[in-house]
This record gives sequence, C-alpha cells and structure tokens, in this order.
Amino acid sequence: MIPNLKIDSERLWSMLMDTAKFGGTPKGGVKRLTLTGEDKQVRDWFRAEMEALGCTVTVDEVGNLFARRPGRNPNLPPIAMGSHLDTQPTGGKFDGILGVIGAVEAMKTLVAAGYETNAPIEVVDWANEEGSRFAPAMLASGVFARVFTPEYAWSREDRQGVTYGDALEAIGYKGSEKAGDHPLQAYFELHIEQGPILEDEGRTIGVLTGVQGMRWYEVTVKGQDAHTGATPMRLRKNALVGTARLIEAIDAIGHRHAPDAVATVGLVEVKPNSRNVVPGEVFFTVDLRHPEEKVLEQMEADFRAAIVDVLPPLKLDWEEAMIWNSPAVKFAPELIACVDRSVDKRGYSKRRMVSGAGHDAVYIARVAPTTMIFVPCEGGLSHNEYETIKAEEAAAGAQVLLDAVLEYDATLA
Amino acid sequence: MIPNLKIDSERLWSMLMDTAKFGGTPKGGVKRLTLTGEDKQVRDWFRAEMEALGCTVTVDEVGNLFARRPGRNPNLPPIAMGSHLDTQPTGGKFDGILGVIGAVEAMKTLVAAGYETNAPIEVVDWANEEGSRFAPAMLASGVFARVFTPEYAWSREDRQGVTYGDALEAIGYKGSEKAGDHPLQAYFELHIEQGPILEDEGRTIGVLTGVQGMRWYEVTVKGQDAHTGATPMRLRKNALVGTARLIEAIDAIGHRHAPDAVATVGLVEVKPNSRNVVPGEVFFTVDLRHPEEKVLEQMEADFRAAIVDVLPPLKLDWEEAMIWNSPAVKFAPELIACVDRSVDKRGYSKRRMVSGAGHDAVYIARVAPTTMIFVPCEGGLSHNEYETIKAEEAAAGAQVLLDAVLEYDATLA
Repeated sequence: MIPNLKIDSERLWSMLMDTAKFGGTPKGGVKRLTLTGEDKQVRDWFRAEMEALGCTVTVDEVGNLFARRPGRNPNLPPIAMGSHLDTQPTGGKFDGILGVIGAVEAMKTLVAAGYETNAPIEVVDWANEEGSRFAPAMLASGVFARVFTPEYAWSREDRQGVTYGDALEAIGYKGSEKAGDHPLQAYFELHIEQGPILEDEGRTIGVLTGVQGMRWYEVTVKGQDAHTGATPMRLRKNALVGTARLIEAIDAIGHRHAPDAVATVGLVEVKPNSRNVVPGEVFFTVDLRHPEEKVLEQMEADFRAAIVDVLPPLKLDWEEAMIWNSPAVKFAPELIACVDRSVDKRGYSKRRMVSGAGHDAVYIARVAPTTMIFVPCEGGLSHNEYETIKAEEAAAGAQVLLDAVLEYDATLA
Repeated sequence: MIPNLKIDSERLWSMLMDTAKFGGTPKGGVKRLTLTGEDKQVRDWFRAEMEALGCTVTVDEVGNLFARRPGRNPNLPPIAMGSHLDTQPTGGKFDGILGVIGAVEAMKTLVAAGYETNAPIEVVDWANEEGSRFAPAMLASGVFARVFTPEYAWSREDRQGVTYGDALEAIGYKGSEKAGDHPLQAYFELHIEQGPILEDEGRTIGVLTGVQGMRWYEVTVKGQDAHTGATPMRLRKNALVGTARLIEAIDAIGHRHAPDAVATVGLVEVKPNSRNVVPGEVFFTVDLRHPEEKVLEQMEADFRAAIVDVLPPLKLDWEEAMIWNSPAVKFAPELIACVDRSVDKRGYSKRRMVSGAGHDAVYIARVAPTTMIFVPCEGGLSHNEYETIKAEEAAAGAQVLLDAVLEYDATLA
C-alpha cells in the first residue's frame, strides 16, 4: 500500500545550486560558517520554503530547525529526515546540504502527491555540524541527544570571542523549544560518502549499518640529536627511524583487519628537523577506526605492541596516550531494512557500508532509531570547494530517502 | 734530533677560558659571530699575544690572520697550524677555538724553548668558518684555496644586509695581502671531534686520514590527500607510508656500509599534516656520507633503487634531486705519519678516523699538504653552549699538534 512517489530530480538539483549561492565561492564551493549571515540566509530560505509547503517550522534553544508536516496519527512522534546546512570554510555544495535539500525535495513530493503519512514527517537542519567556527563538531545534534548541555553549547566561542549563544540571538535563531524535548520516531540521514568506495565499485547507494568506532592517540618518540656526519650508525638514537617503523606497523594493522579497518598516521613533527642533524624527537598522531569495538581493541593492542617491539632495540624512549575515543555506532536494523527494500524497488546498485566519518546521526542514534544513506562523490573528495556529485546520484539518494521513510511509516499503520 | 718540548697545559686551559669571555654567554657557551665586535676582541687579543711572542701578524683581503715565526731557512714556505675563532650563535668554547689556541700554545712553547725550526711556523685564524652570519661556511679558507673569489666573499650579506666586505672594514680587518698569495708548506688543524666515537672507545687522539664525501638530496613523495575514516586501506595513496619505508631503507644503507658510512633523513615535512587526513605529500632530505667516492656512488645507487622499489607499488609518484656534492678529501700521508709518530711518542691512545663534518682543512687540502687531529668532546655534543672537553685531552691535542709540526719540520732539514 506504499505509493510510488517519484521525486523531481531537476527541482532537487535546482535547489542545490540555488542555495549554494548563500556563501558561494569563486571556485564553486561554499563558505557558510555556522550562525553567520550566510547561514541565516539559507535558514531563512529553508523556513520560507517549508512554510510555503504548509509545514510548521520550530527552532530549538540551540538553533536546530524542524519543519513538520502532520500525519494521520497525531500521537506518533515524527519520522525525521535531515542533516546540516553549515559548511567548512572552503567547503563544497553537498556535504550535509544534500541531506537537508534531499529531505525538502522528499517533502515537496509528498505534499504534491497529497499523500498522508501515518506519523508526522519532519525535515531537520541540525546546527553547527562542522564545528569550524564553534568547536566541537555536531554540537547542536549533540545537545538534542543530551551528549552536551545547552549551556555548554551557548558558551562555545569563535576565534573572535563571540559565543554560540550570542551568535544564535544575533541572527534570530535562538528558539524557545528545549533541545531534545522532542522525541523522534526515527531518523534518516542522506549524505555524500566523503570517501571513494562507491565510486570505485561503481555503485549508486551506500546502505549504512553504522559508524566506525574511532580512537585517536598521540605518541612522542625520544632519542638524541646528533651530527649526521660525525655520528656512526651504531651510536645513533634516531627517533625518526623508530617513527618510520611505527608508521609502517600502523599501516600494516589497518591492512591486517581490512576491509573494515583503517589505521593512519596523519601528522608528524620532527625535532630539530634539520638536514644535518639526526632527529632526536618525533611527535606523531595515530587514528584507528573499525565498526567493531572488539576489533578496535585488538588494533589498539597491536599498535601498543608495535611500540614495545620497535623502540627499545633502537634505544628510543616514548610517551603515548589515547586522546579521543568515539565508540562504534550500530544503526537500527528496522530502518536499514527499509532502506534496503527501497533501493531494491528502484533497482539501484548498492553495498552495505559503515561510515568512517562522524555525522549528526552518530548522536541522534542515541535517542532514536537511526540510519543513513550514502551517495558517491567524485574521487571521494570532500571538505573542499571542488567536491562534486552527479545529479542522477543525488536524485537516487533523495528517492531512496523518501521511499525508506514511506516504508517505515507503513509499519506504523 | 727533535727536541722534547712540553706544552703548558694550564696556560693552554687559561687561554681557552680567558678568550671564551669574548662573547661568553650565561650558559657557559660563546656567541662570537664572524666580524662582530666580539670577533674583533678575540682577533685583537690574538694579534697582541702573537706580536708579544715576536711573531709577524698579517691579514689578508678576506680577513684571514697569519702570525709567523721565522725559521732557519727563509726560502721555505711556512708550516701552518690553525682553525677558526668565530662561533655559532649558541656555540661552545672549543669548536675551532681549540685549533687556534692550541697552536698559540705550541708557538709559546717553541718560543720559550728558543727552538729554531727549519721552516717558518704560522698560526692561522681562518675567517668565517661557521657561516652563521655570512653563508656559506668556510668562506675565507675557501677564498685562500681559490674555491671562491674575494669578490664573492665581500658580497655576502648578513640578514641585516651588511656585506662581508663592509663588516671586514668596519672592524679593521680587511688586510692588503691577496688571499692565497701565500703558499703553505703544510697545514695541521687540531679540532674537537664533534662526534661520539673517541669518547665511546675511550681514546684520546683521532688521527685523521680525510674528510667524508657528502651528498645531499631532496625528495618529494606525491600521493593523494584522503579522509582517514572514509578511505579504505586499499584505495590509499599514502605519501607518508612511502616515506617511512624510504627512511628505513636509507638507514639500512648506512648500516650496510658501516662503520664508515652514514645515511640520514633529517628533515621531513608532511602535507597537509592533519590528524584525520591521509598524507598526500611528503618532502624530505637525505644526507649520505662516506670517505670513498666509490662507496658513495654505490650508496646513491642503493638510495635511488629504494625509491623505485618502494614508491610505485604504493601508487606514489616522486621528485628527487641531488642538491649538494662535496667530494671526499684524503689527507697527506706524510703529515698523517707525523701525527702517528707524535701520538705514539707520547703514549696516547689513538684511532684513525675520517671527519664527518666540514672544516677549513677541507679547502686548504686543495692547496697544501694537510691533516687534522681530533680530541674527544663530551657526548659528541657541539654547536651547543654545553659543548665540553677535558683539560687533559685538550693538552694532549696541543702536544700532538706541536710534536707533529716538529716531526714534519725535521724532514725539511
């Protein structure tokens, strides 16, 4: 009994291109930092567009925007679709934005068809997902999910010392609704992959099953500075050689637990970093990710074993500490099933996958059944003005979003 | 018929401590940059001290100072002993200075004994060895050896735009003698090791046989930036992993040709150097040294083979270039023999060695028979305010310097 409602792919693409003008950059990207004038422009557009569809728009105390269309059963909490409209300083036109605009398109399709759902349907714009102006990232979805207090969010400061609370009031988006006083029946987030897997395999839709657990570490390897010419190999305590072996060992840990594991050294600082001095100290960071906490434990143990194997024979000392631990998230099986059925119904190619990056869905999964849908982006490029997606793949994503919501809604009859 | 002349170790140490006040730092080091007021102070001291001994002091056009005591045969060019009195910005009390002050002590011993040599004897202070204020290093010994023209030297500028020529005139040390118009019978340079070998082996004197050939390279490894969470291991082009393997391969090249070879990566710059970005580009430097050019050729070939072995399988591209090539120097066997005999006569422990660092002797070896004598320095530490040597080892070095000069002089009878 689920109707075959087709989204309008040209309307979707037009909305993506039109809203990209709010903060549009000469290189074709978007600079729309949280709670700036450009963010207010896109929020005003969103509110006007949704009110024109007959939706009720509310704003919560940390600036999250909800546009609701009533359902047949007013006692059911809403099924929400959304993501974020803020961007990185040199961001693209699609990261986060596709999830909100795709939801707007789904809502337009519903309204045009006059189809009445069982539950209310909401489109959500979560505030400050990027965290570029106000750290940390996913701030307002975090307050919604009671990971942070509203007071914490309001007190965040940008580099000019402006608080999040003051910036919210300045653009008129500090709402009266208490954040989180707003149960969700379910939450679906459409997003660009921000990685190369779908493109590499030539698939259209990523059916997400969760978000990787992530652990960050900092390591300082300590040896001794020495003259490169006057210090024989056997008398060296070369912190960079020890670091090189650990970089390889960490890369090998990623490969050993492939395809789901990733392990990376991204940042290296060598001291004194001079052509003719054997490096006496190296600082580096480690990023380990896996969808299963148990495997992540093993990767961590492997990493720590590598340190103990590699450094003492080189007469090197070290300090090591885990500085961040974000547990793995499992998405709701009943929502994943709805996405699966929707993809199959439309005949799109798909693969199950786990998000390697954080999203608002990570926090919302703590308070509501949640899942995500990915579409490919060219070369896996994101957080970049050249971020690019194909119009037909954007449309496929929005279609699956709408279909999955309707699939899920049908179970509430 | 060579007299047994004993240097005065207390007088030597007093001169080292007294002259260390010209530019002395609170931490016990010396800041005496080339042609500054502090350099003028120590030059004035040197001139006065040598003239008091009856020596004739001349200055050449690039500021090299020569203090000559006549010999029996006025037709013989002088046997020179020396090094440099300038220091690094945070230098020690001994680097270079020991070679000049040790020579002054040798001269004082000769004069006190009234011993007449066959050849004239000279003590030399080569200007601007360090190159800290005016690059390049070993500038004025380089002009003496016709590696550089005097015009090149005069035109060197410090960071304030003051030329070497103007600075020479400002302190009154631009002499009239043309640089290099001054043949040397032989040149002996006493120096601290600036490395850990003598201390590690518990030996007092290093009998130098030459200076390592040195080759410097720059390498840029090119991969692709990617999100650490969203990019599976198999789709990465991780420039840092390629670099890590090359750092290890280069270290292995040093070990393979040990004990004489050294191979070092000293400087590494990672881009974008962010915790959650797979590094897309890494720049690093390579320093290869060996006393034999033939071995250095092999090390270079091994290094280039490692690049070709390591990078393509990782889907990485690269640029590589040699940016400096300083050929190996062989010291004069007849001078080395004089040092050997002198060390044995005094019963000091010794080892043959090759200098890993550059010295004025590298250039002087092009125009005169040359050798060097090393004494240990604590922990191999140099170019540092905490540079330390033992008074008895300084004395042993000065004693061998004097004895070797007398040994050599005896061959000129």
